[in-house]
Amino acid sequence: MLDDDRTGTPAAHPAEPAHADRDSLRARYAAVRKRTEDLAARLSPEDMQVQPRTECSPTKWHIAHVTWFFETFILREVFPRRKPFHPDFPFLFNSYYWGAGPRQPRPERGLLTRPPLDDVYAYRRAIDADMDRLLAIAEPDTLAAMLPVLEIGLAHEEQHQELILMDILDLFSRNPLRPAYRPAEAAPAASGAAAALRWHEHPGGIVGIGHGAPGFAFDNEGPRHDALLRPFRIASRCVTNGEWLAFMQDGGYERPDLWLMDGWGTVQAEGWQAPEYWVRDGDGGGGWLQYGLTGTGPIDPAAPVVHISFYEADAYARWAGARLPTEEEWEAVAAGLPVEGHFLVHPARDALTPRPAPAAVGPVQMFGDVWEWTGSPYRPYPGYRPPAGTLGEYNGKFMSSQMVLRGGCCATPAGHLRPTYRNFFYPHERWAFSGVRLAEDC
Amino acid sequence: MLDDDRTGTPAAHPAEPAHADRDSLRARYAAVRKRTEDLAARLSPEDMQVQPRTECSPTKWHIAHVTWFFETFILREVFPRRKPFHPDFPFLFNSYYWGAGPRQPRPERGLLTRPPLDDVYAYRRAIDADMDRLLAIAEPDTLAAMLPVLEIGLAHEEQHQELILMDILDLFSRNPLRPAYRPAEAAPAASGAAAALRWHEHPGGIVGIGHGAPGFAFDNEGPRHDALLRPFRIASRCVTNGEWLAFMQDGGYERPDLWLMDGWGTVQAEGWQAPEYWVRDGDGGGGWLQYGLTGTGPIDPAAPVVHISFYEADAYARWAGARLPTEEEWEAVAAGLPVEGHFLVHPARDALTPRPAPAAVGPVQMFGDVWEWTGSPYRPYPGYRPPAGTLGEYNGKFMSSQMVLRGGCCATPAGHLRPTYRNFFYPHERWAFSGVRLAEDC
Amino acid sequence: MLDDDRTGTPAAHPAEPAHADRDSLRARYAAVRKRTEDLAARLSPEDMQVQPRTECSPTKWHIAHVTWFFETFILREVFPRRKPFHPDFPFLFNSYYWGAGPRQPRPERGLLTRPPLDDVYAYRRAIDADMDRLLAIAEPDTLAAMLPVLEIGLAHEEQHQELILMDILDLFSRNPLRPAYRPAEAAPAASGAAAALRWHEHPGGIVGIGHGAPGFAFDNEGPRHDALLRPFRIASRCVTNGEWLAFMQDGGYERPDLWLMDGWGTVQAEGWQAPEYWVRDGDGGGGWLQYGLTGTGPIDPAAPVVHISFYEADAYARWAGARLPTEEEWEAVAAGLPVEGHFLVHPARDALTPRPAPAAVGPVQMFGDVWEWTGSPYRPYPGYRPPAGTLGEYNGKFMSSQMVLRGGCCATPAGHLRPTYRNFFYPHERWAFSGVRLAEDC
Amino acid sequence: MLDDDRTGTPAAHPAEPAHADRDSLRARYAAVRKRTEDLAARLSPEDMQVQPRTECSPTKWHIAHVTWFFETFILREVFPRRKPFHPDFPFLFNSYYWGAGPRQPRPERGLLTRPPLDDVYAYRRAIDADMDRLLAIAEPDTLAAMLPVLEIGLAHEEQHQELILMDILDLFSRNPLRPAYRPAEAAPAASGAAAALRWHEHPGGIVGIGHGAPGFAFDNEGPRHDALLRPFRIASRCVTNGEWLAFMQDGGYERPDLWLMDGWGTVQAEGWQAPEYWVRDGDGGGGWLQYGLTGTGPIDPAAPVVHISFYEADAYARWAGARLPTEEEWEAVAAGLPVEGHFLVHPARDALTPRPAPAAVGPVQMFGDVWEWTGSPYRPYPGYRPPAGTLGEYNGKFMSSQMVLRGGCCATPAGHLRPTYRNFFYPHERWAFSGVRLAEDC
Repeated sequence: MLDDDRTGTPAAHPAEPAHADRDSLRARYAAVRKRTEDLAARLSPEDMQVQPRTECSPTKWHIAHVTWFFETFILREVFPRRKPFHPDFPFLFNSYYWGAGPRQPRPERGLLTRPPLDDVYAYRRAIDADMDRLLAIAEPDTLAAMLPVLEIGLAHEEQHQELILMDILDLFSRNPLRPAYRPAEAAPAASGAAAALRWHEHPGGIVGIGHGAPGFAFDNEGPRHDALLRPFRIASRCVTNGEWLAFMQDGGYERPDLWLMDGWGTVQAEGWQAPEYWVRDGDGGGGWLQYGLTGTGPIDPAAPVVHISFYEADAYARWAGARLPTEEEWEAVAAGLPVEGHFLVHPARDALTPRPAPAAVGPVQMFGDVWEWTGSPYRPYPGYRPPAGTLGEYNGKFMSSQMVLRGGCCATPAGHLRPTYRNFFYPHERWAFSGVRLAEDC
Repeated sequence: MLDDDRTGTPAAHPAEPAHADRDSLRARYAAVRKRTEDLAARLSPEDMQVQPRTECSPTKWHIAHVTWFFETFILREVFPRRKPFHPDFPFLFNSYYWGAGPRQPRPERGLLTRPPLDDVYAYRRAIDADMDRLLAIAEPDTLAAMLPVLEIGLAHEEQHQELILMDILDLFSRNPLRPAYRPAEAAPAASGAAAALRWHEHPGGIVGIGHGAPGFAFDNEGPRHDALLRPFRIASRCVTNGEWLAFMQDGGYERPDLWLMDGWGTVQAEGWQAPEYWVRDGDGGGGWLQYGLTGTGPIDPAAPVVHISFYEADAYARWAGARLPTEEEWEAVAAGLPVEGHFLVHPARDALTPRPAPAAVGPVQMFGDVWEWTGSPYRPYPGYRPPAGTLGEYNGKFMSSQMVLRGGCCATPAGHLRPTYRNFFYPHERWAFSGVRLAEDC
Repeated sequence: MLDDDRTGTPAAHPAEPAHADRDSLRARYAAVRKRTEDLAARLSPEDMQVQPRTECSPTKWHIAHVTWFFETFILREVFPRRKPFHPDFPFLFNSYYWGAGPRQPRPERGLLTRPPLDDVYAYRRAIDADMDRLLAIAEPDTLAAMLPVLEIGLAHEEQHQELILMDILDLFSRNPLRPAYRPAEAAPAASGAAAALRWHEHPGGIVGIGHGAPGFAFDNEGPRHDALLRPFRIASRCVTNGEWLAFMQDGGYERPDLWLMDGWGTVQAEGWQAPEYWVRDGDGGGGWLQYGLTGTGPIDPAAPVVHISFYEADAYARWAGARLPTEEEWEAVAAGLPVEGHFLVHPARDALTPRPAPAAVGPVQMFGDVWEWTGSPYRPYPGYRPPAGTLGEYNGKFMSSQMVLRGGCCATPAGHLRPTYRNFFYPHERWAFSGVRLAEDC
Repeated sequence: MLDDDRTGTPAAHPAEPAHADRDSLRARYAAVRKRTEDLAARLSPEDMQVQPRTECSPTKWHIAHVTWFFETFILREVFPRRKPFHPDFPFLFNSYYWGAGPRQPRPERGLLTRPPLDDVYAYRRAIDADMDRLLAIAEPDTLAAMLPVLEIGLAHEEQHQELILMDILDLFSRNPLRPAYRPAEAAPAASGAAAALRWHEHPGGIVGIGHGAPGFAFDNEGPRHDALLRPFRIASRCVTNGEWLAFMQDGGYERPDLWLMDGWGTVQAEGWQAPEYWVRDGDGGGGWLQYGLTGTGPIDPAAPVVHISFYEADAYARWAGARLPTEEEWEAVAAGLPVEGHFLVHPARDALTPRPAPAAVGPVQMFGDVWEWTGSPYRPYPGYRPPAGTLGEYNGKFMSSQMVLRGGCCATPAGHLRPTYRNFFYPHERWAFSGVRLAEDC
């Protein structure tokens, strides 16, 4: 039901999930749920409790909220008389759905020291048991009807997995001990010089944009439509830390002529001098170190710059005599590429930080490593209408004042991304794993 | 020089102004400058001194700033060794040009009780005399070189004429006496029922967007480029006060489901219950009156609603089952229409408030009366590059987080507007004469 | 060393503690330390982690900070080459002592999810072991020299015990579940009518104020000095909830004439309608319930009103035709009374909320139940000089803009209080167990 | 009626004013009113319009407000059916009297560009004419009854005369032109070395404090009562600029140990490095200049430091090994001295800035030049009760969180001050002509 309105091809989708094998569905559900718990396994109850600022949520809240999502939009939809697991949890763990009733104010999620973590895990167990049973025994019609929402629920939980890593990094970064979420595997070998930057031309013309193929996508990725592009060039890889240091050394953070007006105001108000999580090297030499999920270490000049705002990405592009790609340009290039890259596979084994791009002829690093700011404001596609019902609030109501990012990052669960995937943040925000790739007119 | 970079047709424009008649230029300059003084003539020195909030400027500052513009970008460019009229004025009256040196902080323009108004007028007289002499005797080459900047300077002053009216209305609205800038001519006759709303189809396809013809335009109106539109319908006239009252009575300001997330946050933070400058009728009946430049009076249900934010326009459209037009859709419709409408002609004789649309078959009221919010964020057109030099800061650096409005209003000087003209405000702002026209997909 | 400067009677105090029995000292130290852990025993790691607002601290931080106090001001003073238990803990757990080096910003204490609670308890164990050994084996001279600081350290920890209860109440009150720190013993019997209010006269004259007797006191309680009082009357007991309800019903929170200017500004800015932690009864009758450490329950009209600001105390007194006592008046009455009352004995058995005053002829309830706002700003006594060294920052630097409260409360550890004891809060603060007793001129 | 309650000697005062000569009363009234207009004569309508921040008011508002005071508390009291001069003026020009009805919010006084200055002066003329007639012809009983309020009205206007100078200085200081209210008479001769600082002993004991003699005083100066003082020493003169520079050079603004906690917080939040209105000398030498009503000039090391906060005065005293006097100590010394000093006589001829103290044996400069911060919070005297009626709001409701200053300054109208006069400001405020005199214990 969700997909139909969005794509305008109602027949295709309900049919498709009906072929899904129950056991593989149950396995997928279990695997997604397990990854959340794997992410939390390294955290103490205290780590999971604190909300460092309004934009971030406590891990405990994330864990409860994604559970509430399945309870509310699947279990209580399928069984309309089903009571909530706990009468207060809908209030506590609803995020922003007006249609689902009142809720704990977002800035006060960190005050919820009760329910304790054990109760939240008990909630999780109970909902998981019911979900598994439902997937096992539901009538085919019921299963078909709930499948689109199940897909949303799984994708939703994957989004919160990335948020858990983002929010924990923000929290830990404000602790003077600068704890590591996980130790680095070994002292990373110096990665050597970055791959040379090359430019790849695209001829422009009319291109199809947005999700239209079978398979799940969020409503904001559609409807698929034509866009008219002018010829352009796109960089073969993302901007590196080494290039960013050159920008800084050239006064990038001190020259208002490089910045959008609102960006320069933010630079001054926030005292920005470098990307988020860069810290001064204490050796007095004026150098920089980079803090991340594996602790503090040297800056790898070949790795992509990360944790920058749109304002910084835009200023860098101006300094470099280039510009940001639009989201349509980005998608036109990405559409023909395999969705492969450095994503989140398992928190115990991943690098947990962006890695240098390989040397290559064609565009690389389009997927994974860092989200790439585009020059496109996040607005509805032509013909977009949010789905009916409460889940219509999922994406549509955020379509103002934010900018689109594309491609996923090293904290995005593997398998989550699509070339049509649209992420969005406010232009001043830096706690996502956000970087930049340049473009220019032909 | 300004236009060339922008339009990509460098040869055309320098040639064109060279044909201009010196006397008509001098007359145009004098006429534009006179209109500013006509607007100020009804104001006391105190009225012209106060800055009610950061976004607004004192009339005295407007008057000085537009003068500084001619002094800085024409007289001191033509005569590089020319000293400023007063050594402190460049600091006091520069608005936001980094390239022109440091400046008085914007929120503190109202603190400049010195220089007194007489000195500002003396400044004006001196610059006007020099400008007039320059226009009279400049070598043809010099004249040709300065003409593009002169056009900007005149258009710039016209923009500030509209700002003077906007800012004075804001200031007076916060005085409990609610003074009238000018008395209304007479008790306005009830305007009767609004013209019926009709929908006009546009077939979509590839349309040319942006300024490309001879004649002046701002850099942000170009370069002219093709855009691909889907078929759409646009409303024959703007939304009226009567329709807005229906929205209010249907709980428009109390239903979060109608609003963008940021919009609803603003409604709650600001306590919005009606458009800006609507005031409760003191008779206890719960009705509304409208405050404006001619004082407080009844709400004309047939006149277009005015002083609404983008958020309100967007919520209204959702409530009405429609949407806002994009700026390209708006321009595609407007391109074929004469630029006629209810603009500012003379403050002594104008209505100074939007008037009802006439009954008509085709789209009317596209120009004048109220600026029309579009659904388009204010971003550069494909291929846009700001002009070189300080005037490159005029438009480009504002291209984030604002929305485009089109069509001009009753406070826009007649002759100022073009179908390609792009105005822009933040989505929460309401002190412009901003309204809304609906669109929908075919 | 600390006491000497303060009291001006250097000989008396060092001599006195030298008689102390080592074993009783060790037992006192252990008992005070144990009470902190008893208080924490009912809290989860998450409860102990969160800082609900700048003025409050996490329980975990309190527990670590009081330990740092003994480590820093005793162990590292006695053994100057002793290293800190952990190199980062002095930074993390210093509260406000400039002399002890830089520190974690107060508003960010809640961000310290690391070190985990276990490490903080390990810290505690280590310091306790060393303190116990030191008390057991120190040379008599060393013991004598450290005793004044030990007394401060123990009193300091008792102050933080009260703060733990205050801060946990504040935290839990902002959780929509409104958890109880501990269940109430049983449904409290209706306590019946409050004891009648009587007035007790004091003849005024020159009275001795401040600490001068043997035994420990904080530096801000001295030096003892004479004060000249006019004849006055003081109320036999504190203002009750029943009396406060009468004030509310008479429009106490709506009449600006009853309030100090700053108080009325606070009423309006904060929307105060009742004491802190009073909540509307959900039955629709407009009544009130009281939330506290044992949960939410009916308001006992005979119990003293608690969790009011100085502004409210002052407004109430004005409404009642009386005034607040000065701190000298309060002390002149209290000096002759035994320091007996309803204090904190053990969190498992206490009422944890103020109890009604007994019927009595003389003044009662001067000690315990609720801190009593006085009309005296917190300023140094005549001749006051802070002690030399870092502990001179303990009290002196707070002597501006706060008001004195006297008498202790139900959350103050038994044995902590003296008639000369001066507590202090800003006039708008309400999270202490603060109440009010009236006075008037004769 | 006003004085009686306050002093407790009701018979004395009504009798006394009855001896007043009508003509001398009319002359006094006229002289006070004229001085306000003399102060305004150097200001433009724009200067008189702007409110630079909430604590300051526009000169135009001051001029209207003092007029409203006579209209409201005398003319409309004597003639109860008298209508206001203009129906909106009570709303616009009431300052803070709840009893006198609603009013323009204080932060928005500067928005009142209407009524124009001419209307305010017309208001002034009308009230002055009626006041003069009333003083000329009122029945003796009426005259006697109104005399206490007349005295308040005149003293009130004198207070606003000082405020006009303070507020204009604040406004002009924020104009980058740094205009002079009036040019300095001539380049001031270097004043030479400051008089040597001497200490004068007071034996302490019981002293009478507060106003008790015949003649007008504000209610907050009474009731007269005894206070018990310890022996103390007071400095012969105020702290000089030269001494303050030594404090600065010794790191006075960088050493937290010298400051009260709230004071240090203010230093950091505001970036204080010197007294208010000190500006860096532009010659690059790191020196300072002083801006004042006669413009910017060198700092006179012998003149008293001015425009310092209580926090700065307190920190200086701590640095100097001294303390601030209490208000009772100050008054005990001042009581025996003639009320002579450097006050405001006429804005055209005065220095308009504090002058060095003369060399002398006894305490000098107690009156005039600079207000002297005391260590006493502004609280009611024992037995104080505000007068009945609306004028009871004049002083009493401000008695929290402010500190007492004594002695008047160079902007206080001559004749306005008494040894018992209590001025009060918040401890962080600096725009009054506030300085400091040291004291110490014997």
